[in-house]
Amino acid sequence: MKNRIITISREFGSGGRTVGKELSKRLDIPYYDAEIIQMTAAESGMTQEYIRLQDEMTPHANPLVNSFQARDQYGMTLQDHLWQIQRKVIFDLANRSDCIIIGRCADYLLFHLHHCLRVFIHGDFDDRMERILKVYGESAESPKKRLLDKDFRRKAYYEFYTEQKWGDPKNYDIMLNSGSLGIDQCIDILASIWNNNKEADEI
Amino acid sequence: MKNRIITISREFGSGGRTVGKELSKRLDIPYYDAEIIQMTAAESGMTQEYIRLQDEMTPHANPLVNSFQARDQYGMTLQDHLWQIQRKVIFDLANRSDCIIIGRCADYLLFHLHHCLRVFIHGDFDDRMERILKVYGESAESPKKRLLDKDFRRKAYYEFYTEQKWGDPKNYDIMLNSGSLGIDQCIDILASIWNNNKEADEI
Repeated sequence: MKNRIITISREFGSGGRTVGKELSKRLDIPYYDAEIIQMTAAESGMTQEYIRLQDEMTPHANPLVNSFQARDQYGMTLQDHLWQIQRKVIFDLANRSDCIIIGRCADYLLFHLHHCLRVFIHGDFDDRMERILKVYGESAESPKKRLLDKDFRRKAYYEFYTEQKWGDPKNYDIMLNSGSLGIDQCIDILASIWNNNKEADEI
Repeated sequence: MKNRIITISREFGSGGRTVGKELSKRLDIPYYDAEIIQMTAAESGMTQEYIRLQDEMTPHANPLVNSFQARDQYGMTLQDHLWQIQRKVIFDLANRSDCIIIGRCADYLLFHLHHCLRVFIHGDFDDRMERILKVYGESAESPKKRLLDKDFRRKAYYEFYTEQKWGDPKNYDIMLNSGSLGIDQCIDILASIWNNNKEADEI
């Protein structure tokens, strides 16, 4: 049976996770983010802390692992293995019920299997820097470096495993600038699309 | 005084013009598309037919003109001249009242001058091919070639004069896939953003 799934891809600091969480309360459907890490940990036998470190990390994004586990010479890397487990976790969650899934290429994985509303949340650099300082606090790295690093990882991960371009409009149904529209308005827009399409087969 | 402007950039065949036209009725604000051609014609002394042919055409997109009017050697090309007149027309229209402006780099031109909601409407290739056949009918060129040519021209024009990437999320507040969401729903979403922000200074 096809379920209705909202997949949320997001630039770091854009509030995409908050949008997903609040939308989940508003629509009364589950929201999966940390749960994906817990389930991947349980399936793989690795700790959640380790999975979190590897989360949305491609083989290419980790030069140290790559130097010991060159993909072409030795076959699957550890990240490839985790990707396969996580993919199965995402398929299982999507099969359970309507839900919201944050990141992890869920848009690409589920598009042809379920009725997906593929969302991308982004924001201007300054808005996002302000937001990560407010939400995550100061750290040794500058907010600019944190943003650039995280976006680079997410982009590399997405593009490595999907062979599609991260943030390319053609892979999404709606892209929202949370800085100019505001987080609350992003939630309102997505909730209204969900409710408008309750009777429809496809979003 | 700052006005509230909706700028709509659009892939060919995505129905962006229809969205703008219907939104204009719904919000009771003017919508400018063909009027920009008429006004540019009046200011430049050229015919509307000629302006239409040159519309959203960069110096680089017309090799014949370029061979006689090489930009670097002879200064401003005819398209540069039309760009300057059209830019003034767009500034004048935006200064008159709240309005909707289709294409022509209005998002870039007006962003810092008015309260802009910068919209990009796009669609899957097959949906757009189907739509141009329905709206514009058959022609000697295949729908695929017509789509690719027109998008190429719009992209080249936008990027030449703005030095920004056409269709890059960071230049827009909202990007909508009219194929998956439907034209009517795109209009609903934009109307609700307009009405939600009636009291706000910035969209």
